[in-house]
Amino acid sequence: MTLKRLLLVSNSTLYGGGYLEHCQDQIQKFLGGQVKRVLFIPYALQDRDNYAKTARQKFQSLGYALDSIHEAADPVESVLTAEAIFIGGGNTFRLLKALYDNNLIQVIRKKVIEDGIPYIGSSAGTNVATVSINTTNDMPIVYPPSLQALGFVPFNINPHYLDPNANSKHMGETREQRIKQYHEEPDTPHVLALREGCMLLVEGNKATLLGITKARLFKRGECPTEHEPGEDFSFLLNQ
Amino acid sequence: MTLKRLLLVSNSTLYGGGYLEHCQDQIQKFLGGQVKRVLFIPYALQDRDNYAKTARQKFQSLGYALDSIHEAADPVESVLTAEAIFIGGGNTFRLLKALYDNNLIQVIRKKVIEDGIPYIGSSAGTNVATVSINTTNDMPIVYPPSLQALGFVPFNINPHYLDPNANSKHMGETREQRIKQYHEEPDTPHVLALREGCMLLVEGNKATLLGITKARLFKRGECPTEHEPGEDFSFLLNQ
Repeated sequence: MTLKRLLLVSNSTLYGGGYLEHCQDQIQKFLGGQVKRVLFIPYALQDRDNYAKTARQKFQSLGYALDSIHEAADPVESVLTAEAIFIGGGNTFRLLKALYDNNLIQVIRKKVIEDGIPYIGSSAGTNVATVSINTTNDMPIVYPPSLQALGFVPFNINPHYLDPNANSKHMGETREQRIKQYHEEPDTPHVLALREGCMLLVEGNKATLLGITKARLFKRGECPTEHEPGEDFSFLLNQ
Repeated sequence: MTLKRLLLVSNSTLYGGGYLEHCQDQIQKFLGGQVKRVLFIPYALQDRDNYAKTARQKFQSLGYALDSIHEAADPVESVLTAEAIFIGGGNTFRLLKALYDNNLIQVIRKKVIEDGIPYIGSSAGTNVATVSINTTNDMPIVYPPSLQALGFVPFNINPHYLDPNANSKHMGETREQRIKQYHEEPDTPHVLALREGCMLLVEGNKATLLGITKARLFKRGECPTEHEPGEDFSFLLNQ
């Protein structure tokens, strides 16, 4: 039996560090020695060539070759033959629309859920791994055909979670207020808010918070709760 | 000939002040003595009763009766007979979806553009007055049938505009970066970024920035520019 394997990272770059530096140990441990090549999906940023170059340099430095889907003749075929998939950050609406436009939703779901190839998401790439992008922070610069996403897990994630700033004079909604507005809507799933510096590891029925910052969990109609790195989040997989 | 009349406010509450306090003088001057009743559209917040109560108290204190559309037997009919319309802030996706769900887009457009009744928008209510809600700051908690909005003006607005915080260690995109990502998409209109404390007055072919803070104007492929209260923005109406 194949196990679903996901590494869902809040943010690609942590303050003061390089690209994927704060999660590189977790990436290496997650991919291990079996995987040789990673398929990169750069759709969240406009300059795909440059984005693939940045990602390729990083993954090569960790010992993995990287193919970018935007250089493939047939994007669907490149997913079908992928050993592992990494979707990077940028604008979540742009990313999800491109996944739909290229008919990649079902094929990525099959590869990750049924075939069990490792999936790494960062920021927008983490958003699209969940039920929907209803809890993205991004500006809706394009209109995807749906907000439903890859649905690898039965909850949503809010990446780059920000605590309210008590000193701010800005009157826009805090992140917590925004997530609570989401939960005012009926039948909305839990929202796991990942602060910059943490990530969720999913291996089959087991989920664990990794990294150096805490996560905040929002359940509809309940008070949010705080969770430390290392904590077992497997209960989230069985909603 | 009727003139289109709009008062598009960045934010409902300014730090340290009460609801609509920072723009109450402009509201009174804008509505003048002719208007007796204002039709309020509270769709951006879940608790419509409470929201209408807050808005009613404020407008009554300024000398205007307020009818909330959610209390009307027929929302379309209430727009058709309105003397003036005020759409308040909250979640822009929720607001726009409710406008579509209640078949209000065309009838509000007709009343404001053809019949020239005064329109006041605040925050989300300002977003929906523009071409589209592509430049809202809100979380996409629901999925409207389109991001196209009321289109009273041929550009978009970003309300609650925030300058980058040089001391922040947060790595999410700045507001400016988000608007620039929007302008990476083809055929995107200008974006007028209204800081909290300012508003745009439109009377026919004339547009003026009012309030106490500056606005920042983003044009596709150009460097953004800064604009002082009092400045003439009429050129924005003729794109």
